[in-house]
Amino acid sequence: MIAHVSRKNLADALSSVERIVPSRSSNPSLSLVKLTLGHGLLTLSGSNLDIDIQASLNVDTEDQGVWALPAQVFSQVVRALPGELVELSFEETELELQAGSYATKLQLVEASLPSLTFPEGYSGSFSGERLTTALTHVRYAAAVAEYQAIFRGVRLEFDDRHVRTVATDGFRLAYYHIDDVAGLDGAVVLPARSVDELARLLSGGEVKLELLEGQLSLATGPYKLNLKLMEGAFPDYQRVIPSEFPVSVTASAKELLEGVQRVAVMADRTANNRVDLFVRGGTVQVTAEGAYGRSQEALAVSQEGSESEIALAYNADYLLSALRPVEGDVRFSFSGPTSPSVLASLQDPSYLAMVVPLRTG
Amino acid sequence: MIAHVSRKNLADALSSVERIVPSRSSNPSLSLVKLTLGHGLLTLSGSNLDIDIQASLNVDTEDQGVWALPAQVFSQVVRALPGELVELSFEETELELQAGSYATKLQLVEASLPSLTFPEGYSGSFSGERLTTALTHVRYAAAVAEYQAIFRGVRLEFDDRHVRTVATDGFRLAYYHIDDVAGLDGAVVLPARSVDELARLLSGGEVKLELLEGQLSLATGPYKLNLKLMEGAFPDYQRVIPSEFPVSVTASAKELLEGVQRVAVMADRTANNRVDLFVRGGTVQVTAEGAYGRSQEALAVSQEGSESEIALAYNADYLLSALRPVEGDVRFSFSGPTSPSVLASLQDPSYLAMVVPLRTG
Repeated sequence: MIAHVSRKNLADALSSVERIVPSRSSNPSLSLVKLTLGHGLLTLSGSNLDIDIQASLNVDTEDQGVWALPAQVFSQVVRALPGELVELSFEETELELQAGSYATKLQLVEASLPSLTFPEGYSGSFSGERLTTALTHVRYAAAVAEYQAIFRGVRLEFDDRHVRTVATDGFRLAYYHIDDVAGLDGAVVLPARSVDELARLLSGGEVKLELLEGQLSLATGPYKLNLKLMEGAFPDYQRVIPSEFPVSVTASAKELLEGVQRVAVMADRTANNRVDLFVRGGTVQVTAEGAYGRSQEALAVSQEGSESEIALAYNADYLLSALRPVEGDVRFSFSGPTSPSVLASLQDPSYLAMVVPLRTG
Repeated sequence: MIAHVSRKNLADALSSVERIVPSRSSNPSLSLVKLTLGHGLLTLSGSNLDIDIQASLNVDTEDQGVWALPAQVFSQVVRALPGELVELSFEETELELQAGSYATKLQLVEASLPSLTFPEGYSGSFSGERLTTALTHVRYAAAVAEYQAIFRGVRLEFDDRHVRTVATDGFRLAYYHIDDVAGLDGAVVLPARSVDELARLLSGGEVKLELLEGQLSLATGPYKLNLKLMEGAFPDYQRVIPSEFPVSVTASAKELLEGVQRVAVMADRTANNRVDLFVRGGTVQVTAEGAYGRSQEALAVSQEGSESEIALAYNADYLLSALRPVEGDVRFSFSGPTSPSVLASLQDPSYLAMVVPLRTG
């Protein structure tokens, strides 16, 4: 049984499947990629239990069959192939790959693979590019620690007017709000790692969506994905975003980011990487002090509000990650020295970040 | 005491010193950089006992003084500075760095630093670029294992006609031979890590050289270096390079490299990464076999010699690293299935590599 396929398409599809399939697992069949030939398509599929992935490629045969191979080895061989076209010859126990004067015989594996099912149709659709933007703007705020459970995910909300993404670890929050509909209704929480893989696979084109029991299913380009949902109650984040700000400043996000970065070099990593901000008279004074000395920088800003000054302390890393997605100017609003501060992009009002100041003294 | 210095020059010099100075050491004074002001120069110096380094920068003061700072922190702060110019203010216990609206105070350290001495004059000189070429062509062949002692170094030979570099781990050898003189006479062995640092610091300009008791001293651009020599007898490598070759082939080094790379994907990492070469009728057949299958590739070459065919096996990594420095065509000469093979660059006759085939069966 012989099929020809574009080397680049095969390599791309395989590297996407390989990224998801675990290279080692207590269940060895999980590290396999399943190859299905039929209806003029070669379909590669695999799973890590949180993510099922399937990639379909056009081939020049109507033959049918199902095989399995270790994903990592197969991907490595295909990446090394020369030329534009690969010839795949499926034999009894071996798959032969030929390209130019190069030939490899890979042993096929007999294994009972978990059976993956993808939806026949999708009721929702959205721009892949905008969904990527919404996911990558908030991803950083998801928690890392194992015990933080649902905080380790990114929430996606679909209703009849909006698409929203939210992530929070309890100390900071990021939020992206799009005034457009995807044709779905509901809110789900995806594991951060699934969000990373999804953002990587989404292209500029359309993504089709379906909300099913316990999973979000997507189809984009040659890929179909089932993403397993996280269980648990996501906090009522709207309630904690303050609306009264006695002091706020507007500044170039880039200048503020670079200033905090420079000062933070001296911050004490064993004490939350603390940097201090003192706002008064149209200037933000940024200072840090650590074991090796002290650094400071003054930034000219446009200042507003009912109070004339405020002093706050932050984890520098939290400030920096909240600022990084902002292009152009940022409005940095302070509700008080111990209550959350809010950062908003003037250029892209969809993005909002919240950072809780450090408790000092 | 105030001095102004170019930010870029200070950052470059400091990062070179920081690379050498250990970030942690049982002797904490080793992780310091010493700052010496005097004669219109700011001199930074440090050591890891194998390498002493000193970098000199022009400053706009004739003041004098000696201080010390943790190299890593100082370098990190300087890298983060904005603008072109840095103002250094040396106070009693602190060094203040100012650049634009940014200022940092770093605590100075009181420490008895090891006293470093660099030669006043150098009797030899050579092209920095050619010395780098000679070092980087052979560096890969040095041994890695701790017990291999002198094999872990790179030998440099200077006589009244040549400059030569050699490295070998007993299974392969690389050799670079320049028909030019450096004005020195003697042979030394440098630790591979010192060779890496030297190659990084050498620029296109001239390097001055001096052979002293137990060390090779060099001066290049703003840097002075003392490199401690390795002790022990380097093997008589000339004796093991064969001169009779019943079969030899000429091929594009790039094509041979890529072919071996592709085939080696299937090679067995637990069995010396073995690839087999079979030379006959103007073709080199490269094959490998591992746990997941078998790969092969045929390359058309120009074949010469008294014998019509030969079969050999190599560690693929050894073949690949011997081929990597070759541009254009390579002559690959086989003295026999169990005796060393020689690879020579047709374009750059200075380079020669030797690889011992694997013993098979």
